[in-house]
Amino acid sequence: MSRVRVHNFAVSLDGYGTGEGQTLEAPFGHAGQRLHGWFFGTGAFREMQGKSGGEAGADDAFARRWEPGIGAEIMGRNKFGPQRGPWQDEEWKGWWGDNPPFHTPVFVLTHHPRPSLEMEGGTTFHFIDATPQEALRQAREAAGGLDVRIGGGPETVRQFLAADLVDHLHVVLVPIVLGRGERLWDGLEELESRFPTVESVTTPSGVTHLTFTRP
Amino acid sequence: MSRVRVHNFAVSLDGYGTGEGQTLEAPFGHAGQRLHGWFFGTGAFREMQGKSGGEAGADDAFARRWEPGIGAEIMGRNKFGPQRGPWQDEEWKGWWGDNPPFHTPVFVLTHHPRPSLEMEGGTTFHFIDATPQEALRQAREAAGGLDVRIGGGPETVRQFLAADLVDHLHVVLVPIVLGRGERLWDGLEELESRFPTVESVTTPSGVTHLTFTRP
Repeated sequence: MSRVRVHNFAVSLDGYGTGEGQTLEAPFGHAGQRLHGWFFGTGAFREMQGKSGGEAGADDAFARRWEPGIGAEIMGRNKFGPQRGPWQDEEWKGWWGDNPPFHTPVFVLTHHPRPSLEMEGGTTFHFIDATPQEALRQAREAAGGLDVRIGGGPETVRQFLAADLVDHLHVVLVPIVLGRGERLWDGLEELESRFPTVESVTTPSGVTHLTFTRP
Repeated sequence: MSRVRVHNFAVSLDGYGTGEGQTLEAPFGHAGQRLHGWFFGTGAFREMQGKSGGEAGADDAFARRWEPGIGAEIMGRNKFGPQRGPWQDEEWKGWWGDNPPFHTPVFVLTHHPRPSLEMEGGTTFHFIDATPQEALRQAREAAGGLDVRIGGGPETVRQFLAADLVDHLHVVLVPIVLGRGERLWDGLEELESRFPTVESVTTPSGVTHLTFTRP
């Protein structure tokens, strides 16, 4: 059965998955790179950038779980780019250059659909105005039996959790207080009760990896 | 120098240090005992109850740091009891019986002062209407050179953190989503930057102990 997975989703102690004030130069707003310091040192991240080396410990092991078995991703529009409202600039093709790291169909949730974008390396962005359930139906069809990743941002992950559509949730707790931005946990009271297995592990980078899983 | 310390302060993933709806039967409201499961198994807790045995691992080691070197505690009125507004019942002497576990002066912050209560075992409750700074001045004087513990609840800890009066903060992150109650982290943006040392460690009970310390 195709499962729905969230990986490497970093939140602050106060539950923010991104900061306030996203811009072209600051995809995570005032959070800057503070939510992802644990990731930049990993071999997984270096490979994405075409480099070798990097750490191969627990942060890296978790980071690498992001890819195998995934046949499609669903992301919110704010993960795709900083524009809001009707598209002013259809030249914008995401933050990731000509060859994005997804290498699968990617469904971008937006109230303003636009033509699909076929990128190098197997990534195609589809822009759809859909409920979580409908987006998942389309993503599953595109995934050809593989799993579907919910890629963020916080509001998108939160909506899929609220609709109880997520089977595997990997959250990285970063010991900082962001103070403002978009929160993950709102409206998810007793989320833990839906997952028979909840594990926590801290790594030398100081973050705590939390995994909520169900069969 | 007398330091100001917070110990064993449990919060949920969404930052709540207590639930909604405190009553005589439910000191932590709808959170019940969910924030403190990690504590009940420890030898430290069993000792407080006059029993022997219990776990002696990392949860226990942290739990025991609560007592040594402390000469006074400051707590909010809601930690002392469920009454609000003017005291209806001065017979109420806290949740802890005749011999509370503090064994020091305890300053209870309230807008409704009442006569001090001398309990067995060295605990005396003083009821004061004071700012964090003034309460700390009185507690330090009573502590005779020892450290002062900020005992909770969330609003009291938050106020002392906001006033930058805390030197050692031990928070226990419990992997549950409470959804409602009193939050710890509000208004504390970049709290971590005030503490040169921030450490995290997860224990087999599934919680993460976070310590923020400065000399």
